[in-house]
Amino acid sequence: PDQTAADRARERQSRLTKPPGSLGVLEEVAVKLAALQGTPLPRSRPAAALLFAADHAVTRHGVSPYPSAVTAAMVENFLRGGAASSVLCRQLGVPLHVVDVGVLRQPARPPDEGISFRRDPVADEPGGDLRVEDAMSETTFRRALAAGAEEVDKLPDDVRLVMLGEMGIGNTTAAAAVAALLLGRKAEEVVGRGTGVDNAGLARKVEVVGDAVRRLEGAGPERAVQSAGGRDIAALVGAAARAIERRKVVLVDGFIVSVAMLALERMAPGAREWMLFAHRSAEAGHQHVLEALGARPMLDLGLRLGEGSGALTALPLVDAACALHAGMATFEEAGVPDRGQG
Amino acid sequence: PDQTAADRARERQSRLTKPPGSLGVLEEVAVKLAALQGTPLPRSRPAAALLFAADHAVTRHGVSPYPSAVTAAMVENFLRGGAASSVLCRQLGVPLHVVDVGVLRQPARPPDEGISFRRDPVADEPGGDLRVEDAMSETTFRRALAAGAEEVDKLPDDVRLVMLGEMGIGNTTAAAAVAALLLGRKAEEVVGRGTGVDNAGLARKVEVVGDAVRRLEGAGPERAVQSAGGRDIAALVGAAARAIERRKVVLVDGFIVSVAMLALERMAPGAREWMLFAHRSAEAGHQHVLEALGARPMLDLGLRLGEGSGALTALPLVDAACALHAGMATFEEAGVPDRGQG
Repeated sequence: PDQTAADRARERQSRLTKPPGSLGVLEEVAVKLAALQGTPLPRSRPAAALLFAADHAVTRHGVSPYPSAVTAAMVENFLRGGAASSVLCRQLGVPLHVVDVGVLRQPARPPDEGISFRRDPVADEPGGDLRVEDAMSETTFRRALAAGAEEVDKLPDDVRLVMLGEMGIGNTTAAAAVAALLLGRKAEEVVGRGTGVDNAGLARKVEVVGDAVRRLEGAGPERAVQSAGGRDIAALVGAAARAIERRKVVLVDGFIVSVAMLALERMAPGAREWMLFAHRSAEAGHQHVLEALGARPMLDLGLRLGEGSGALTALPLVDAACALHAGMATFEEAGVPDRGQG
Repeated sequence: PDQTAADRARERQSRLTKPPGSLGVLEEVAVKLAALQGTPLPRSRPAAALLFAADHAVTRHGVSPYPSAVTAAMVENFLRGGAASSVLCRQLGVPLHVVDVGVLRQPARPPDEGISFRRDPVADEPGGDLRVEDAMSETTFRRALAAGAEEVDKLPDDVRLVMLGEMGIGNTTAAAAVAALLLGRKAEEVVGRGTGVDNAGLARKVEVVGDAVRRLEGAGPERAVQSAGGRDIAALVGAAARAIERRKVVLVDGFIVSVAMLALERMAPGAREWMLFAHRSAEAGHQHVLEALGARPMLDLGLRLGEGSGALTALPLVDAACALHAGMATFEEAGVPDRGQG
């Protein structure tokens, strides 16, 4: 982060025609982006949304009310513009990039305009049931990280903001297992209802995560993602790491993406500095992950959909922060008397 | 509100390709708008922003860190596109309508494109110091209400959403006095720092509001606005009343607009049904006003600028709610297996 740019942005904020501090979080966002982008006039656009999709063998334990087939069907829905994140991307003028890193069935048709699709070779590698075995081999884990990085490499240099999302029936179970390992918390503290599992399913989910935690106790962040996560979660880690390397800001979505970001911060301390947090998910475990990251998200709307939908919902706030910072007149420009000058 | 439209909207939400309830507040907003607009596919656009500006004689008591001259200077800033709300309106493609209902000096130049300006005749009537006398005569109060209504009458029929805002040095003092009267609360419970008054100024503000409350104890909502408010606050009441008559939804800004909306609800019970609440202001008294209205705002970003800036910041969330509701595919359309069908 560039302290000089931050100072200049802060100084500019103090001269804009408003009482100091009266734009609250929107001022903080502008100053933070200035520091990260190394300019007193930061930008939120161009922005891009990247979605990583994978299936999870752990669904065999009945941890989700939806069948695994929904992952592939939702990928098709993304590509045809019918999913929440497709709608938001269209509404906001954001290109949507969908990457299959492990979906059981491939889409039948090419994507609509403004949407890209790529099936990464890592999708053909086997995935394990995290309850009893590693979710990935170490090689597959490395390849999933690389799949995420590769998608970020395809983005134009001028992309300022990256929104990451995921689709994968069973992946709140995987994320909860990773969170439990990273935070040293019990399964029941990080397991939530995900897409809306009933009480019996919730109990199974707690058991499954508990078994994974016992199997993997003491695992570091890489091992946690490899053995208890999934290819989607690994790809999120790899994508964020590369985005940050390329000095792009990551606008962090909800529970699953936040778990991936916590893993990244543990692998590469300081990564968190490059993240803006979009929203507080209704998924129970998110709170603990946000606390561990010292994050105060912008929105708290009871969202729990995933797909990057929370990040996309928050993007207009970042747009507003940048537009206000760059577009408002200063007291001097507008000839407005400042306080105490009357 | 149209219960059938609300039911059909709720039913549509249950068929969209997402877990039920996973879009949280965005689902509630879509269903509420459906009820108000009487259609299962509600819209947030066209939207319009109306700003009412007036000076306040109460500034003579040193209740604001800014001189009264700032009101006129900020009106010029709105018209030339340099104020926060001008920037947000431009960013969001929303026409901005500025109405002078009592500013001491008139703008020198016509407004920029996309911005309208009108000086209502009520601006020439005298305003009183609410500490010791009525802020308006009853006739002036009626004319200020009418000024607000008239501006709404100028809006095209198809405008779905109205955002109201205000500009007036001293008007958090007036709003606090009205709030104290409406809520039966002490001055110190509803007085805040406004644009950032210091401790001595805050103490003066509490005294001024306390004096007004003693002078007006037991006043009803109309008398409270007339005698302790200001022409800007009265115009907000009149504008919202007419907007609701014309079946337009009001997206409510922060403290001052909320006080006007509470007065309206007291004058015309049920008006509140037509309001969406944009944000929780950092201004201390807002909390009590929101509670009295039973409102849970969408945003909590520490904003305290006024000018309708909070409503404009929240507009993209209403846009998102409508876009998702109308644009997402249903399970059937997308061929996605619903829960329990696997």
